[in-house]
Amino acid sequence: MKFEYQKSALVTEEQINALAERLEPYRQHLSDVAERIDYAEPESSIQLPFDEDLITRVKKLADTLRTPTLQYVVVVGIGGSNLGAMSVYEAIAGSMNLLIDRLPKLLFLDTISDERMTAVTRQLVNASTIDDFAIIAISKSGGTTEVIANMEALWHNLEEHYGDVSGRFAVVTGEHSKLWQAAENRAIQKISLPDPVGGRYSVLSAAGLLPIELAKIDTDQLLQGAREAVKDGVSKDLSKNHALVSASLNLLHLQAERSMHNTFLFSPKLESLGKWYRQLMGESIGKEKDLDGHTVHAGITPIISIGSTDLHSMAQLYYGGPDDKFTNLVYAFEGNVNEVPAHLQLPGLVKEIQRKSLEQIMTAIIGGVKAAYEEKKRPFISIQLESITPKELGYYLQFRMIEMMYLAKLMNVNAFDQPAVETYKTATQNLLKSA
Amino acid sequence: MKFEYQKSALVTEEQINALAERLEPYRQHLSDVAERIDYAEPESSIQLPFDEDLITRVKKLADTLRTPTLQYVVVVGIGGSNLGAMSVYEAIAGSMNLLIDRLPKLLFLDTISDERMTAVTRQLVNASTIDDFAIIAISKSGGTTEVIANMEALWHNLEEHYGDVSGRFAVVTGEHSKLWQAAENRAIQKISLPDPVGGRYSVLSAAGLLPIELAKIDTDQLLQGAREAVKDGVSKDLSKNHALVSASLNLLHLQAERSMHNTFLFSPKLESLGKWYRQLMGESIGKEKDLDGHTVHAGITPIISIGSTDLHSMAQLYYGGPDDKFTNLVYAFEGNVNEVPAHLQLPGLVKEIQRKSLEQIMTAIIGGVKAAYEEKKRPFISIQLESITPKELGYYLQFRMIEMMYLAKLMNVNAFDQPAVETYKTATQNLLKSA
Repeated sequence: MKFEYQKSALVTEEQINALAERLEPYRQHLSDVAERIDYAEPESSIQLPFDEDLITRVKKLADTLRTPTLQYVVVVGIGGSNLGAMSVYEAIAGSMNLLIDRLPKLLFLDTISDERMTAVTRQLVNASTIDDFAIIAISKSGGTTEVIANMEALWHNLEEHYGDVSGRFAVVTGEHSKLWQAAENRAIQKISLPDPVGGRYSVLSAAGLLPIELAKIDTDQLLQGAREAVKDGVSKDLSKNHALVSASLNLLHLQAERSMHNTFLFSPKLESLGKWYRQLMGESIGKEKDLDGHTVHAGITPIISIGSTDLHSMAQLYYGGPDDKFTNLVYAFEGNVNEVPAHLQLPGLVKEIQRKSLEQIMTAIIGGVKAAYEEKKRPFISIQLESITPKELGYYLQFRMIEMMYLAKLMNVNAFDQPAVETYKTATQNLLKSA
Repeated sequence: MKFEYQKSALVTEEQINALAERLEPYRQHLSDVAERIDYAEPESSIQLPFDEDLITRVKKLADTLRTPTLQYVVVVGIGGSNLGAMSVYEAIAGSMNLLIDRLPKLLFLDTISDERMTAVTRQLVNASTIDDFAIIAISKSGGTTEVIANMEALWHNLEEHYGDVSGRFAVVTGEHSKLWQAAENRAIQKISLPDPVGGRYSVLSAAGLLPIELAKIDTDQLLQGAREAVKDGVSKDLSKNHALVSASLNLLHLQAERSMHNTFLFSPKLESLGKWYRQLMGESIGKEKDLDGHTVHAGITPIISIGSTDLHSMAQLYYGGPDDKFTNLVYAFEGNVNEVPAHLQLPGLVKEIQRKSLEQIMTAIIGGVKAAYEEKKRPFISIQLESITPKELGYYLQFRMIEMMYLAKLMNVNAFDQPAVETYKTATQNLLKSA
């Protein structure tokens, strides 16, 4: 991963160094946490990539669900319980994964949706046998309304068609949840999530690893990348510690009136990776109160843009509108299959595209975007992935999670809770009673 | 469409009335424009739903492309050239349209992407005959790099497999563009876009109507809804003129430090509708200069949330973080196929869900969300569609386009240009030269 900010971010090295000094005790703490696998700290998600027992358990459970004819793996989860798996799956399987032949496919049932449930049910009941599918229900608390309702509705639909399908279900949940106990009582396969690892930090726990493994994506490489990011993320060497530098950049740009963080990803298959980060940043630092109990209404609003698509919808605002965003360009150069031929069907429309691969054209567009940001004096950094592989994705995900811990520390907020979501959950529960 | 703001938006009726008075000359102007079909004004997009000749030409062209075995219609466009068709198609065909049996399917080739091109090419070359697909290339200027490059690369791929496929192509472009002339020279089918109608206002032109018609979605109903929205949108009666009121609400909330507009759509199949509006607002009012030439850096940043998914990723920020957003909840109640059964497989996890339809649960969630916004004193309005039908979508799209004209007028900016995007286009062109 290439991380470049020196010329394009509106900061000085002195500012970064000052923040690094403030973060030094926390960096030391993270470094200590990374040495153990005890799941005793809120930061314990950084221990996951080193947990050999975990990956052994994930692969064992995957082996029991994997069949020679497995076509569909339905992931029933919402928010942190599926965004991680979705981001890795779509980055590898592509933005048109539902259309292409690649098997097994992951199907995500997140929100409650009659049309989605109908579509998924239809695929599964059109299968030959129950060995053609598996269902993974993920809820750390075991009490997420959407997940439990979707799981029960889908189970019911399948049972009506196939009879007993309980062997095709697995649950991923906390060992102290009611779901864990219910699965135990019903002899449903299960795998646990460590208590201190919250949903938005759970991509490298069983919540992410189990679906990813079943989708035939190399989890070992994913974890290898994540281990390297932990090593870099606890390093004192700022030229390696992109997480700490990126956290500092976010704070400095927020203090300079940039209330939005725009992740501009130059590939449609990275959109879910953007959404994963959106939750990570939105929930981790969007806080009513700081750690001292003062009301602060802290937060940066993370937004996502997809290049070059959104150049044709949002560039006008980004370059001409308010200077209130700090932009991260994220891209990789890869793939050179298709090109514009030498002999054009309709010549004379756009210059300089003949004999160029689509990749070359995209490279020019990214260069054009950088030049425009520079000309318009809008701050950005660029993050170039070597290519879009499990290893690079593992690095990126872990880099972002550590970044968010540093950023929350700088902002003096709790990176790991989400107290404000209780209000709508309570109101929803009351409305369900009277429905 | 039910439009409710009185209790939940932080405005007074006096404020709205004052803005309505300011807008009165422009409302009168729009009313006049709506009486004609001359495409002589920047606002002429509101004439499209009344243009009977247009729909006749669209249907005639669709008839020539439609075959008994048509499976895939590839829309090659970007930004305003495909977001409109995409938003209507996905709202009707569903969020899992690539997975389900519905035919013909629309496939969107927007950005340059090797993996997308490969996926689309593969589908088309796996067809039995060239009658199984059609390709629509859309570019008003005829010089959009991504569109022309994608069209040529796809054409080349298809020709290698099938030989001459030119009869399966159609272009949608301005009559004065080079693309129009090139298609003429090559005897490629074509249909025109009126000069004053820009991409983001073009959903009800041939750019949107041709793909939508081919996808077997009722364009007559779509236009019927749009005609009703024009009627309401030029009305002096504020209880009907949601476009004018909504524009006023946007301005008032911006003036009250809400720099973001959050469209919170409660169905995954409405995500593209959100993206369509994002372009409409982003490009129309995100402006460096106002109409008097003063540098203003005007703009509201439109963001999109999908309920209930994003309650599990962004609600913490929305309820606890900075009070810097004005939220529009958009939803419809429809579909009651699936339900949580009376007999649960894993009982005791979530209360009150047994025997509830998924729709009932979603209704409770929306109620919970509103209650939470009220409790947290964050401003919102709610827009309830009768159901998700072509007619309601036509109304919604037209309502939003008129809203944006009023809003730009209130902000004294040009709703129809996008001068700031030239910078990256020029830089890209220079880089292509040296690539």
